[in-house]
Amino acid sequence: MSESRYTLGIDFGTDSVRAVVVDATNGKQLGGGVSAYRRWAEGRFCDARKNRFRQHPDDYTESMTEAVAGAISQAGREAASKIEGITVDATCSTPCFVDETGTPLACLPEFAEEPDAMFILWKDHTSVAQAERINALARGWKGGDFTAYEGGVYSSEWFWAKALRVAETNPRVASRAASLVEHVDWMPALLAGVKDFRKIVRGRGPAGHKAMWHPSWGGYPPADFLAALHPRLAELRKELPSETFTTNTRVGLLCPEWASRLGLKESVVVSAGIMDAQSGAVGGCVSPGTMLKIMGTSTCDLLIGPKSEGQERLVKGICGQVDGSVVPGWIGYEAGQSAYGDIFAWFRSILAWPLKALPELADRKEAESRIIPAIEAAAAMIEPGESGLIALDWLNGRRTPFADQSLKGAIVGLTLGTDAPMMYRALVEAAAFGSRAIAERLREEGVPIDRIVAVGGVSRKSPLVMQISADVLGMEIGVSAADQSCALGAAMYASVAAGIHPDVDSAQSAMGCGTEMVYKPDPKRRKIYDELYRQYLKLGSMIESERIII
Amino acid sequence: MSESRYTLGIDFGTDSVRAVVVDATNGKQLGGGVSAYRRWAEGRFCDARKNRFRQHPDDYTESMTEAVAGAISQAGREAASKIEGITVDATCSTPCFVDETGTPLACLPEFAEEPDAMFILWKDHTSVAQAERINALARGWKGGDFTAYEGGVYSSEWFWAKALRVAETNPRVASRAASLVEHVDWMPALLAGVKDFRKIVRGRGPAGHKAMWHPSWGGYPPADFLAALHPRLAELRKELPSETFTTNTRVGLLCPEWASRLGLKESVVVSAGIMDAQSGAVGGCVSPGTMLKIMGTSTCDLLIGPKSEGQERLVKGICGQVDGSVVPGWIGYEAGQSAYGDIFAWFRSILAWPLKALPELADRKEAESRIIPAIEAAAAMIEPGESGLIALDWLNGRRTPFADQSLKGAIVGLTLGTDAPMMYRALVEAAAFGSRAIAERLREEGVPIDRIVAVGGVSRKSPLVMQISADVLGMEIGVSAADQSCALGAAMYASVAAGIHPDVDSAQSAMGCGTEMVYKPDPKRRKIYDELYRQYLKLGSMIESERIII
Repeated sequence: MSESRYTLGIDFGTDSVRAVVVDATNGKQLGGGVSAYRRWAEGRFCDARKNRFRQHPDDYTESMTEAVAGAISQAGREAASKIEGITVDATCSTPCFVDETGTPLACLPEFAEEPDAMFILWKDHTSVAQAERINALARGWKGGDFTAYEGGVYSSEWFWAKALRVAETNPRVASRAASLVEHVDWMPALLAGVKDFRKIVRGRGPAGHKAMWHPSWGGYPPADFLAALHPRLAELRKELPSETFTTNTRVGLLCPEWASRLGLKESVVVSAGIMDAQSGAVGGCVSPGTMLKIMGTSTCDLLIGPKSEGQERLVKGICGQVDGSVVPGWIGYEAGQSAYGDIFAWFRSILAWPLKALPELADRKEAESRIIPAIEAAAAMIEPGESGLIALDWLNGRRTPFADQSLKGAIVGLTLGTDAPMMYRALVEAAAFGSRAIAERLREEGVPIDRIVAVGGVSRKSPLVMQISADVLGMEIGVSAADQSCALGAAMYASVAAGIHPDVDSAQSAMGCGTEMVYKPDPKRRKIYDELYRQYLKLGSMIESERIII
Repeated sequence: MSESRYTLGIDFGTDSVRAVVVDATNGKQLGGGVSAYRRWAEGRFCDARKNRFRQHPDDYTESMTEAVAGAISQAGREAASKIEGITVDATCSTPCFVDETGTPLACLPEFAEEPDAMFILWKDHTSVAQAERINALARGWKGGDFTAYEGGVYSSEWFWAKALRVAETNPRVASRAASLVEHVDWMPALLAGVKDFRKIVRGRGPAGHKAMWHPSWGGYPPADFLAALHPRLAELRKELPSETFTTNTRVGLLCPEWASRLGLKESVVVSAGIMDAQSGAVGGCVSPGTMLKIMGTSTCDLLIGPKSEGQERLVKGICGQVDGSVVPGWIGYEAGQSAYGDIFAWFRSILAWPLKALPELADRKEAESRIIPAIEAAAAMIEPGESGLIALDWLNGRRTPFADQSLKGAIVGLTLGTDAPMMYRALVEAAAFGSRAIAERLREEGVPIDRIVAVGGVSRKSPLVMQISADVLGMEIGVSAADQSCALGAAMYASVAAGIHPDVDSAQSAMGCGTEMVYKPDPKRRKIYDELYRQYLKLGSMIESERIII
């Protein structure tokens, strides 16, 4: 292993794609590239007021090409020629209707401007009513609860809820489609040149965490269950494979078209895809007892645990627990908050309203980018409890514990003396309280959490958020030294698929990079936050039970 | 009455003082002047985060001099020489500790920088704990409930709560003081050259609405009640007169010092003072069945009703009902919201935070003044119920119904799609819901409200607020044509005190100016608001009963 052997990790985030060329023998990053989705940045096909978020397939392919070109130009042509494997990670559940060749319907001329024919982004919440119907049906189903391994509550963010909405409201799309495919499964199929929708490899994680796939009932939920929701779902199910695959699986070799487009050899191994959070957990060196917190626009909290002998332990209220979704051979537990960095960005956009609306500030729009650093500095001067504010972090619904996308956020305790930094701090505290609610749910079910390692943009950019999280959670939080942990996790998996390392554990040992910074809880602030956390729970259960929602 | 006879009305508001010279024969305004309090504008002696709001007596005298000079320079020297009477109105309860000569302690060198020796502005909420103690004592008092005519709940904004806090926490001020005098009583005494604190005329309104004065128990609450709160209060009470006076009472003639300072004759009659809202009600031509809404930084809702024969009817949860506080011979009912225009100004200040905090916007601070018009235009495009937001208007506590200054505001229903105009509209709706809660409380007690006339800054500046109020209240709201109704009401009273008119009714007939605009409720929006109002009540009672307050 003294000779250099390289892999490529490609990480599709919510707003952009990152590519890294990594030396699989030591984890050194030789080149990186990033590219923001162009149509998405323009707000096309989206309507934030209705929580409709769609992404065009061309955004993915164009930006991937650009990001890989950037990574290769940094790593050099010679390094590119040594790349042996590619793994893609992506947001999930972000499915799209495809035709018989596996082509997204939006790429057909007749659906070029049709948002339902594009990828329905994870945070799209247009399927709240459908998720409720799925939950109602699942709860009373004689053949067992198909949401059991997804925490007992099916989310509007997920595969079947999105499929059902389109089946119900857009028959033109639903009837033209041959299948529905996750973004994270579509990318490797595209790179490997798969031209038959039946041959698209379905990842274990996406299927198990988001689409009610489980071996105990033969894969996806049975046709009669799906038919009770909508006949079209039962038809779509018929064409779905019953088997799913962990990310160490080879999907194929890079097809000539994409080899030429990316400037790589055709012998490069393409592995199955992996969900972005799971990839980040691998890149951040997840291991039993170490919770990986991926802190981005939303959060994902990942843990792995041993498969129990005989009967499986079910953790209620958690998004999912799926054999091999993070690391083959281990149960992957996934929890998370539907909005995290998005909450802070939301408040920035509220404060930036005058910059956008007032003609006299038209030439100062770029000041918006200075708001977060400035308000974090001001908010850091406020003591816990000083503002009298309590906020709820459910601005994009609640994912865990106990998914309910119809819940909304709140700020309570406002006075004429409340200022913007106080409100910002209250939102940061609310996000930390949401994290604590997840950790406490897991502990209540006996899943131990010994330490936390944080990865993702927020963990590196906001010391305020990190310190408040440590104070609220009452645990040390280490920040991973990997600045692109998702892409690094993908590169690790590529090294396994390409045969450079025998398994994920070996890949992590060779390529992992530890923590670079540790936030320690302050005992005094932690005590105050214990009380504020009780107020948060009280407010939350009040709002939840009284349904102050219109 | 064909010959011109003039009077001067002087209106002390929260931020500035206005003076008007009016022709008492026809109500025509001949000249007006306004002056903002200089120290107040600089934020001196205040701490908004602690709800501490103090005003220095020199702010009042300097600004009054400037405002009267402005009015006279517009009306002309000759008109000034024809002025026969002066009435002052002012915020209330805004008391100040004075020495034996009636001089505010802050004017003595040893108290020059002492906020407790200044006027404690109506909206100062530093006496919340003291108000609670007064309420607890009053509730169990064997000799009857002295808060009965003030709605059964004594507010931290009022006379004795403020006196008690200073007695408890600042003995240096409390022991040096000879008495405590309301701003609205101090001004006429100053103008009339009263140099003995015992001779300061106490207005019926301030005493009855804010200081538990009632003839049935011999004026102010008995000494043993006050002594149970603090011995110093009983001593202060000993020096308070037992009689109070309606505003048609002559306090004296303008003293030489102030005649020269204001450029007026010494023969000008100075009447007793009147609370600003009551004056606005008179200027807006209050009459039985017509509720006057004074819409400024806060609101006051004023009504007059006949004295019932035999036993008095008590309206629970309303600030007060006092014989003659608005018009002699009638019971004056006062209700109101502790924050109103202040809520909208608060949200503007939240949005303006980047303008103040970011160096790159330092030269654009004046853009803040454009925020309200721009956001009102945007908020007007949003339909009722569309945003899914419900807010509580208690950002400065709740005055009526059922005073509780410890309550706070809230915004519930936030999503990532919530924008600043939605939040602004939710705050406007909350303010209107607060108005409706007051109107419903009065109706429940059988006090009829046939129509509403609005006066004050908000009623003239914000069509959005007015239309939403009409939709939420389900009543037509006329906007008084008097653009300075408080100052006009004072000028009306001055005409009565000076003997130009025999009574307030005659003064209103001669000098009143009707409504200039009527907002009509839209039946469709009204129905939606009926439902949203129920949500507002539900959220409010939840927050109130669960005490989500820290």
